[in-house]
Amino acid sequence: MTDQDRRAHRREARRPGAATRAAGVRPLEMKLPLTEVLAPDGVESIHRASMRLLKEQGILVLDYPPARETFKQNGATVEGELVKIDEDTLLHFVKQAPSTFTQLARNPANNLTLGGRSMVFAPVYGPPFVGSLDWGRRRATIEDFRNFAKLTYMAEHLHHNGGTLCEPNDIDVKERHLDMLLAHIMLSDKAFMGSVTHADNARDTVTMSRILFGEEAIQQTPATLSLINASSPLRFDDRMFGALEVYARARQAVLVTPFIIAGAMSPSTMAATLAQQNAEALFGICYAQMLNSGTPVIYGSFLANIDMKSGAPCFGTPEDALALYGGAQMARHYNLPYRSGGNFTASRTPDAQAGYESASTIWPTVQAGVNFVLHAAGWLEGGLIAGYEKFVIDLEMCGMMARYVNGVGLSDEDFAWDAYQEIGPGQHFLGAQHTMRHYDTAFYQHKVFSMDNYEKWESEGSQDTYHKANAVWKKTLKEYEQPPLDPAIAEELNAFVEQRRMEIRQGKPRTEWTR
Amino acid sequence: MTDQDRRAHRREARRPGAATRAAGVRPLEMKLPLTEVLAPDGVESIHRASMRLLKEQGILVLDYPPARETFKQNGATVEGELVKIDEDTLLHFVKQAPSTFTQLARNPANNLTLGGRSMVFAPVYGPPFVGSLDWGRRRATIEDFRNFAKLTYMAEHLHHNGGTLCEPNDIDVKERHLDMLLAHIMLSDKAFMGSVTHADNARDTVTMSRILFGEEAIQQTPATLSLINASSPLRFDDRMFGALEVYARARQAVLVTPFIIAGAMSPSTMAATLAQQNAEALFGICYAQMLNSGTPVIYGSFLANIDMKSGAPCFGTPEDALALYGGAQMARHYNLPYRSGGNFTASRTPDAQAGYESASTIWPTVQAGVNFVLHAAGWLEGGLIAGYEKFVIDLEMCGMMARYVNGVGLSDEDFAWDAYQEIGPGQHFLGAQHTMRHYDTAFYQHKVFSMDNYEKWESEGSQDTYHKANAVWKKTLKEYEQPPLDPAIAEELNAFVEQRRMEIRQGKPRTEWTR
Repeated sequence: MTDQDRRAHRREARRPGAATRAAGVRPLEMKLPLTEVLAPDGVESIHRASMRLLKEQGILVLDYPPARETFKQNGATVEGELVKIDEDTLLHFVKQAPSTFTQLARNPANNLTLGGRSMVFAPVYGPPFVGSLDWGRRRATIEDFRNFAKLTYMAEHLHHNGGTLCEPNDIDVKERHLDMLLAHIMLSDKAFMGSVTHADNARDTVTMSRILFGEEAIQQTPATLSLINASSPLRFDDRMFGALEVYARARQAVLVTPFIIAGAMSPSTMAATLAQQNAEALFGICYAQMLNSGTPVIYGSFLANIDMKSGAPCFGTPEDALALYGGAQMARHYNLPYRSGGNFTASRTPDAQAGYESASTIWPTVQAGVNFVLHAAGWLEGGLIAGYEKFVIDLEMCGMMARYVNGVGLSDEDFAWDAYQEIGPGQHFLGAQHTMRHYDTAFYQHKVFSMDNYEKWESEGSQDTYHKANAVWKKTLKEYEQPPLDPAIAEELNAFVEQRRMEIRQGKPRTEWTR
Repeated sequence: MTDQDRRAHRREARRPGAATRAAGVRPLEMKLPLTEVLAPDGVESIHRASMRLLKEQGILVLDYPPARETFKQNGATVEGELVKIDEDTLLHFVKQAPSTFTQLARNPANNLTLGGRSMVFAPVYGPPFVGSLDWGRRRATIEDFRNFAKLTYMAEHLHHNGGTLCEPNDIDVKERHLDMLLAHIMLSDKAFMGSVTHADNARDTVTMSRILFGEEAIQQTPATLSLINASSPLRFDDRMFGALEVYARARQAVLVTPFIIAGAMSPSTMAATLAQQNAEALFGICYAQMLNSGTPVIYGSFLANIDMKSGAPCFGTPEDALALYGGAQMARHYNLPYRSGGNFTASRTPDAQAGYESASTIWPTVQAGVNFVLHAAGWLEGGLIAGYEKFVIDLEMCGMMARYVNGVGLSDEDFAWDAYQEIGPGQHFLGAQHTMRHYDTAFYQHKVFSMDNYEKWESEGSQDTYHKANAVWKKTLKEYEQPPLDPAIAEELNAFVEQRRMEIRQGKPRTEWTR
């Protein structure tokens, strides 16, 4: 090692997050018994109801004849745009999906297990707006997108980069997927999600993954995980099934998620809602297996409910929590990885309501053993706002959950016999040797929440969490440094993006790109 | 019925909360499987560790020789102020405690079951301060106490009046228990807690209960439930054991609760903390049974942890949640009703932190199946502040929990077959007959939280939850009407209180009062 190398090495070691980057961010491993809300016969009832829906009602497959053809060839009944499928045919394909799989990240230490007892946290997905104490709410830009990519990279308790962190409205909708993918790849070294807005955009995602990892690597292990929403009730369209087809054929992972606001996109009762969700999720998963047996999939749930009086969506409700747990039981019934939950709220700012509702989602999320937790940080106003302050506040909860899942230690050291020998009845343990040994690790250490008493808090300006968090995200962005990427790969990615941008602007068909 | 009666009847029916008052406020019945964090051998390890603590370390019983004498006579070893007891002796007495019991309320519809699957919510207990958007924080007065008694009475989702709703600092400490008891009895018709600040105050509580219910009634079914704190670690004092003795001999229920901030009053590891809590709770319960076999008791837990760096208490942490669940398993192991949790926070105002921390306590509380939930509404700044706005915001969570515990319905109606027949794939369910049938009951209906979109919210003044709740508690107090009480009983209670007030002011010994 030359002196220059040593200096560089020391500089690297001092960089914020350097230790995390080297070690990678490991997903949570849920070591506790999972909370369940359905008895085994409840799971069976919901299974049977969903099989009946698929056989008798069927699923609308809109504007995408190839999918209907695929279903037909594999034993389903097609009536116009309606596809009906029986239990045996469906389960024959569903069983071909792996129960766990790995997703590649460009830092191999950040490769992720999806399924089993693994829990992966990813940031908010999809908001057209960004929110902050500084400006309230405004339309998101690519600058905001990049900021959230940086904040995600810096976050110790986010294991995955997510996808559409916010909509970069200042870039044409036809080409913005390129800028988003480039930001994910360049600004972070965690795993990321692909574009689903068009089959061509999915192809671009696959091509960029090939450039980054190589064709063979992504054939063996998916480099992207992409969100395929059902347009519930009982309906998929060409946009989503088109993207799904591209990904399945390229052996990239898909997250099939019915999008249900109960009372509107499903009946207002949770049993029916769970049955419908089950039918829709399994239908999409079945299609992925028909296209390419063994395609890695996740059984998805995005489930909220309407406010009956106003029709507005509600989040963090008791009904949503029950459905979240029930959905987890259904996914486990089919041996599939499960996506659900996050830190949801209907509130527009990170106020008390946002705190109660978010915690009321993330606790069931973790206790249900959800494998992929999208929207774990930054979600406001029912997903319309990516909140800067909300993002860093939610990370506090993610950090707490990372400790919770480890449960209660029961070693001799945990029973602290030496502490009782040292400290007699009636005396405090603050100075005990045992307490000193556990000083750094005993309890979760807060980053944003304040334990200050009223006097200290008042003397420092009576800042609530919203104000405190404002300083935190700004400091984090200031400390951000881009993770290095092989210049040859960076150059090739940039070249591809510029070529595709030209093609899109000129209205030319997509050129197939091969390395 | 005369016309006058009819008018009175109609007026009564229109009074806010009249329906609730007639029907009573029923405790929650937890119908879901309980969440557990300890395997059976974990429960056994903690049991064994606590038996070792009781036998080898012992419990300090300070300034109360009669208690040490009682333990000695019943087979414990007394060394100075230290009482050591073996497993067989301890469990012999613990087993005499009932697994469930009823507490009387002056409205018989509000009588409560404590134990089993019943969950009772009670308001915050003990804060010296009150907080509001209007004034920040100030010392509490009897007027505040009465306000919280009224708010509790009006609260659909509080089943119990609690005890020291806040400290009435404007009344001399020697007599304020009288004013608090009178407020509980006069302003509400729900069950209440007794005074524990002195054995004489406990006697006053028992006397007032006798006046209200009659001697025989309270001998059969306790009229009060009183909070006996251990002064942890491994210590009880004359104040608490003096009050416990009065209550046990009068067959009134006691809630034996170690008061533990882990890292200070216990080691910083949760296994040791749970073992110590178990030792302390069982020791107090054992004492109650030695005094009067069959005395109704609750196994209590008040458990938070310190911030290692500042020494400040933390609330809503992952460690606290684990301990809450673990404590529930221990209480069930001995077949005892369990008290724990609430809506805890270290925050000084109802901000996002307060929301996250409170929800992070109430979810584990409910999922652990806690039977008596003190501090379910109003808690701020680690219990130093009874917050007016926090109180009504917490009620929102209590209301959600009241729905959560019912689980997922699985009847034919819940599967909504007619809705699918009516509404084809791709159509929304808003106007379906099935949705209309469930319009009023389908989902939790929010009282404080707002589902308004950003535009509506902004046009109405961008109020956060703190501001919204400010209007709610004021409106509730305005709507309050005192529940009628037999004038003869009211007169006798007032006479007793005035007599005792005189005795206390004149420094005279307590007169035994018999009806």
